[in-house]
Amino acid sequence: MIDGLRNLLSALVNRPALGVFPGEDWPAKLQNVLMSVAPTGLDHVTTMMCGSCSNENAFKNIFIWYQSQLRGKAPFSEKEIASSMVNQAPGAPKLSILSFHGAFHGRTLGCLSTTHSKYIHKIDIPSFDWPIASFPKYRYPLEENVRENAQEDARCLAEVEGLIEAYAKKGIPVAGIIVEPIQSEGGDNEASPEFFQNLQKIAKRHGSALLIDEVQTGGGPTGKLWCHEHFNLDSPPDVVTFSKKMQLGGYYHAAHMKPAQPYRVFNTWMGDPGKLLLLESILKVIKQESLLKNVEKTGAKLKAGLLQAQNEFPTLLNSARGRGTFLAINCASTKLRDDIVAALKQKGVLSGGCGEISIRFRPALIFQERHVDIFLDKFRQVLKELK
Amino acid sequence: MIDGLRNLLSALVNRPALGVFPGEDWPAKLQNVLMSVAPTGLDHVTTMMCGSCSNENAFKNIFIWYQSQLRGKAPFSEKEIASSMVNQAPGAPKLSILSFHGAFHGRTLGCLSTTHSKYIHKIDIPSFDWPIASFPKYRYPLEENVRENAQEDARCLAEVEGLIEAYAKKGIPVAGIIVEPIQSEGGDNEASPEFFQNLQKIAKRHGSALLIDEVQTGGGPTGKLWCHEHFNLDSPPDVVTFSKKMQLGGYYHAAHMKPAQPYRVFNTWMGDPGKLLLLESILKVIKQESLLKNVEKTGAKLKAGLLQAQNEFPTLLNSARGRGTFLAINCASTKLRDDIVAALKQKGVLSGGCGEISIRFRPALIFQERHVDIFLDKFRQVLKELK
Repeated sequence: MIDGLRNLLSALVNRPALGVFPGEDWPAKLQNVLMSVAPTGLDHVTTMMCGSCSNENAFKNIFIWYQSQLRGKAPFSEKEIASSMVNQAPGAPKLSILSFHGAFHGRTLGCLSTTHSKYIHKIDIPSFDWPIASFPKYRYPLEENVRENAQEDARCLAEVEGLIEAYAKKGIPVAGIIVEPIQSEGGDNEASPEFFQNLQKIAKRHGSALLIDEVQTGGGPTGKLWCHEHFNLDSPPDVVTFSKKMQLGGYYHAAHMKPAQPYRVFNTWMGDPGKLLLLESILKVIKQESLLKNVEKTGAKLKAGLLQAQNEFPTLLNSARGRGTFLAINCASTKLRDDIVAALKQKGVLSGGCGEISIRFRPALIFQERHVDIFLDKFRQVLKELK
Repeated sequence: MIDGLRNLLSALVNRPALGVFPGEDWPAKLQNVLMSVAPTGLDHVTTMMCGSCSNENAFKNIFIWYQSQLRGKAPFSEKEIASSMVNQAPGAPKLSILSFHGAFHGRTLGCLSTTHSKYIHKIDIPSFDWPIASFPKYRYPLEENVRENAQEDARCLAEVEGLIEAYAKKGIPVAGIIVEPIQSEGGDNEASPEFFQNLQKIAKRHGSALLIDEVQTGGGPTGKLWCHEHFNLDSPPDVVTFSKKMQLGGYYHAAHMKPAQPYRVFNTWMGDPGKLLLLESILKVIKQESLLKNVEKTGAKLKAGLLQAQNEFPTLLNSARGRGTFLAINCASTKLRDDIVAALKQKGVLSGGCGEISIRFRPALIFQERHVDIFLDKFRQVLKELK
């Protein structure tokens, strides 16, 4: 047997799942690792294997919560029980999750009904008829377009509210709203704190849960462990999903989202204790080396460099944006974007495209100011060559 | 950092995903580990993290295959592209997966539409309107009920065919059929090789793919690595999903199920190389210690013991059944079943309930004949006490 796996294997054999047979030290591990970085106000966590399963099961939690409010203290009816078993209402009710154009929330069938970034993810796959609202498209620089962008927020929020009302009338009420703090796969589209504050108000007004999908943004790259901490929401969101940088998947949620009955959200693995150990070490290093502060500092420097680059090459670049090192910039065309990404790669710099015309920057949390200098130097070389 | 994880961590950092950035030895590992035990005729594998994601993505493969047959060599139409992005037909077509009453295929929203074992899994969760057929309910002992059970097969198969025709008329054609070789969660309900042979014939006749879900049955407990090897099918099934005993999830599929375009089935992790290493060791031990032969031998002995017990206690037990050590027996009532499981636990034997009145036996592959003796001794003590 491979030597380095021996300890892990023996640990796993005795403790096959986070949620099922935790050995005596696992509840403490969950508390000291995952709960130590829980978003404020969310004191429950459900662990999963990946981002898609996290969103799928978060949707289930939301549906269960929504129906339990309608049902009150009444038990499940015989009709609900029988109809649920054959995929029909009222047991399998017509409920929806509202999502945004340009969003990416995963590719399993529930998640895919809320994903709208690229058609190749969706074509040929059956979908739930769930509502989709516009996500703000801002003009940059933000400080010169305050009025227009506030109008854009208002337009999108009015659309959200209109869709909630329309789908209620249509008999498919919106049980929850899912939103990324920054639409990542869809083109690094950001929205203002005010947009999220008002989105939460709309959700509360209509009795819909607010799910913030931090699968891409969570874990530190925006300079805070959770991007929505930048938004000063009136109260915590109902659910926050995570995966990727957190090593294992799952969702934090408020106490009111917990189902009254056991085993309604469950699976074989319920996360992976091995990944929790990896996360423990990662969080320790983030703390020891003050990596969130580092992200803030290098992010500010990288963003300043991107703004300078777009001033220097205004026919090539525009709309530098983002938080921390979770940054992006737009190119004049898709071809130019692809050319820049390819030329950077030739110089040893890995970057990535997102949306139609954006380059996204996703350096690791240990990215230093000196790395920014190296990058900006190569970036300028590429821009000069392509000008 | 925890010592035993150091090697694994460094391996993972350099090779973050099975499907994305495999280091030079990973394709060989996939070949030598996962493909070395592929079901006959299925020479492609797609790796995933868990059983639910395996079924969800297998459904997607089936939908893509189904639509590509209708489309032929034509490209995606503008209308398909645009409508897919907003969850509407024709881009997000109305297609279905036929499943069976009593089935369990996972709990994410697509899978859950094919799961029908317990209402608590399904109630309050929206579902696709997909067809559900009866799964055979046999009379035991099988050899005394040959005619009745063949009629039961015919009844269920006629229902399958009727539903395929009805859902085609309804505008929700059956792109695929999902079935467990033994319905596990639903009560260890088995069906005859002839049932599966004819089910495959029906699937072929109607242009539906056949997906065999071996998440529970795969990995050796039936005495073969894949339970459907017991069925002598005319040709390989189109897709076989796995997880649990295989350590990581995924599905084997035939070449014709491979999408023509890349990235249509994809996610961040695409399985877990760490789990592939665990599986490598497990498969080595299965081979070295001839564990499939062991399962056959101990399974035969355990089954004989169960049959003897039901002869000795005919008012308590009946319908002993199963393959290998993947065995079950029915109790006279749910209460008696629960009492037996509880009393066995008091004597240090872990067993489990499944369905309404069944006890399921799921010993590890290393379960020996002497363990059967110990178990049967304690089982008889319990039955005498409860008689």
